[in-house]
Amino acid sequence: MGDIAGLLAEAVGPENVLTGHAVPDDYGHDEALTVTPRLPLAVVRPGSTAEVSAVLRIAQQARVPVVARGSGTGLSGAAVAGPEAVLVSFERMDAVLEVDTANHVAVVQPGVTLEQLDRHAEPLGLVYPVFPGEPSASIGGNVATNAGGMRAVKYGVTRHQVLGLEAVLAGGKVVRTGGKFVKSSTGYDLTQLIVGSEGTLALVTEATLKLYPRAPEAATVLAPFSSLDEVTGAVPPVVHSGIGPRVLEYVDAITMAAITTSAGLDLGIPEEVRDKASAYLVVVLESTHEDRLDEDVAALGDMLSSLGALEVYVLPPQAGAHLITARERAFFVAKASGADDIVDVVVPRAVIPRYLAQVGILAQEHQALVTGCGHVGDGNVHLSVFQPDAERRHELLTEIMRAGLALGGAITGEHGLGTEKKPYFMALEDPAKVELMRRIKDAFDPEGILNPGKVFD
Amino acid sequence: MGDIAGLLAEAVGPENVLTGHAVPDDYGHDEALTVTPRLPLAVVRPGSTAEVSAVLRIAQQARVPVVARGSGTGLSGAAVAGPEAVLVSFERMDAVLEVDTANHVAVVQPGVTLEQLDRHAEPLGLVYPVFPGEPSASIGGNVATNAGGMRAVKYGVTRHQVLGLEAVLAGGKVVRTGGKFVKSSTGYDLTQLIVGSEGTLALVTEATLKLYPRAPEAATVLAPFSSLDEVTGAVPPVVHSGIGPRVLEYVDAITMAAITTSAGLDLGIPEEVRDKASAYLVVVLESTHEDRLDEDVAALGDMLSSLGALEVYVLPPQAGAHLITARERAFFVAKASGADDIVDVVVPRAVIPRYLAQVGILAQEHQALVTGCGHVGDGNVHLSVFQPDAERRHELLTEIMRAGLALGGAITGEHGLGTEKKPYFMALEDPAKVELMRRIKDAFDPEGILNPGKVFD
Repeated sequence: MGDIAGLLAEAVGPENVLTGHAVPDDYGHDEALTVTPRLPLAVVRPGSTAEVSAVLRIAQQARVPVVARGSGTGLSGAAVAGPEAVLVSFERMDAVLEVDTANHVAVVQPGVTLEQLDRHAEPLGLVYPVFPGEPSASIGGNVATNAGGMRAVKYGVTRHQVLGLEAVLAGGKVVRTGGKFVKSSTGYDLTQLIVGSEGTLALVTEATLKLYPRAPEAATVLAPFSSLDEVTGAVPPVVHSGIGPRVLEYVDAITMAAITTSAGLDLGIPEEVRDKASAYLVVVLESTHEDRLDEDVAALGDMLSSLGALEVYVLPPQAGAHLITARERAFFVAKASGADDIVDVVVPRAVIPRYLAQVGILAQEHQALVTGCGHVGDGNVHLSVFQPDAERRHELLTEIMRAGLALGGAITGEHGLGTEKKPYFMALEDPAKVELMRRIKDAFDPEGILNPGKVFD
Repeated sequence: MGDIAGLLAEAVGPENVLTGHAVPDDYGHDEALTVTPRLPLAVVRPGSTAEVSAVLRIAQQARVPVVARGSGTGLSGAAVAGPEAVLVSFERMDAVLEVDTANHVAVVQPGVTLEQLDRHAEPLGLVYPVFPGEPSASIGGNVATNAGGMRAVKYGVTRHQVLGLEAVLAGGKVVRTGGKFVKSSTGYDLTQLIVGSEGTLALVTEATLKLYPRAPEAATVLAPFSSLDEVTGAVPPVVHSGIGPRVLEYVDAITMAAITTSAGLDLGIPEEVRDKASAYLVVVLESTHEDRLDEDVAALGDMLSSLGALEVYVLPPQAGAHLITARERAFFVAKASGADDIVDVVVPRAVIPRYLAQVGILAQEHQALVTGCGHVGDGNVHLSVFQPDAERRHELLTEIMRAGLALGGAITGEHGLGTEKKPYFMALEDPAKVELMRRIKDAFDPEGILNPGKVFD
């Protein structure tokens, strides 16, 4: 240990290696509700790709595991290291290297936050469209978990924006994948394999990201419905109409009350409408032209009314923005209300009502309260599970995930497996696929240095 | 051989196994200009996933290589098997299993052609947006090569539409990846790894594909420019404007003359404009509303004029469609004119003029003629190389590809490596990445049964 700390200090400078009591508690956890905080052997803060490479060379030689960490806003425990591992924190590698307006890409270091990237893109009339609801999240962390968020229905998730990577392999070799282009058929797509691999295949030291023209006009439409079936039933016609919503969310009545109360937000919905509403559809439209936006909002309103909306509210810009922010904070509201765990199963969007009906029955059977909201355009539901008994909760979550898989879904849409959802993955996923993933892991990291014990055992 | 043919006949029925003189010549080649036709040991035509599984079990036991084939329209030799290998032709697995209008996806077997899928999607107001220019191409082949085409600038390439796969691994195990959803963070993305792997990792037996609303309105705008620099210089402002072009192509003057003459197409461009034009920009816009389309076309015209277009022509619908078809047939025109090979290097789109200037110098140095067109919105250039001497041509292509890589590009944007571009890949790609790909290949197919000798050695 003294030995490896010395080598790491030589590699990155002694001021960038923290050990023992010098390690702040914050490095011991992420935002997962269930994770047990654990401090690493050492925290290393490299300042360059060469330093990351040196760290991985040292770690490989010493057979010491390495865990990558961005802003620590993850929800699966993937960025938590134990006392046997070195935590590589990317906080010093936080430069926006380039915003290339001719190719419409940004080249960034992994420690860059979403907020920071947006500050660079916005004045140029561009946008990096992934908004997972936590502006302090880092690009490196987003790449590791394939972060999603509310705009996925229009723009896709992190994976769809990552055009290229610089990454350091176990042992220290640096590779560059992809580039400033959207298409390539030149061998296996290493970029897409590394995206979403939760730090188990390589450490990302640079990402080339797709940028989009920033639509100048946007409007938020809120429609309460008396049943969730009607909310999800409205999705295909809205998508089919070609208006291309930026956001298409559902919020159940309990969650809507909780997030608006918590945000001190009065949407002006009369009590008699609220009483009848069992779920809300939230749609954000955007456009290059104000008149087109107005026309689209009117057409959407007519459509939603004909599809059974109790009312259709076009929110004033500020209230619209507040509602979206309140929705983004839903996790923290759930946390503050004492939620014991969260689930982000993804299913085909058309089966959401069937799925949530099954979840409701499972919750009753396990004497738990399950509330939620979610990306109804993507089939990604966010459930808060209130059941303090760990064993019963584990059983319930297993059944909730099993039901999602049975409907053609997957265990996690955007949070990742890490340590906290790994047991469900190991229990429920096709063993042939897990075995294939293990073999891919071995192909990248035969010594098992990179984030061992995450994703799968 | 007699033995394996017997086992295969048991698995798929004797009428679906062809050997010896019964194998039609067509199974011995694809559309690559340079490929040497070679007939396989046997052609097998499975009718179901179970039959594909049985074929792979038999092949693994007999240690006989297996090569997958769709419509045989590939351009890299990937679907050509030698006399030591079994060719699995997917022509009987050609069912559109489902067009799911609630989730906006199609579930298809690999032998379905693009044309066939379009016939299913069109009446529902939906579109599968990948148009690589060959409507008889199969989805299985498109998935294997990650096919692109002219609409990639708006919709992305095949990889961006494939949400899930059913695939048979070497040895016969069947796995399902992804599903009817755009987001998942549930372990490594096996779907994206298999897409573009040219049949070397698994045989795809079913694909779940994203569908989009079919825009009812479209217009084709053609603008001659006196330099290619001006054509590529027009791309960032067009993209930035948010009009979202469906197609954004450049065609050099020689190629424009060739493809219009070949198609018998008179675009009505006066000779004095044609004489001054050194390259053309072709833009297709689409919209949900006729009035918006008209407004966008007018704005585009003003923009292109201010950016130096010699003229701006809004083509009548039929002429527009003909021009796009003529552009799609550019490969066959080049072939008929005696082109010796083709290149589809991809580079960051803003460096296309610099790249093509370098290609021009290289062509002169190697006493070759190089003409072209390409996806200027994507940086994907299509070059026809006229140089009959194989050795000199190989040298020239190596330098053309080396120059593309030096500018941050990749060897092939959409055609794949197969056997015909593999030597360049082996010579020019970072050996660390090739080694990683080899290890991934071993993880999937330790016995080297699936399409050995393709992509890399």
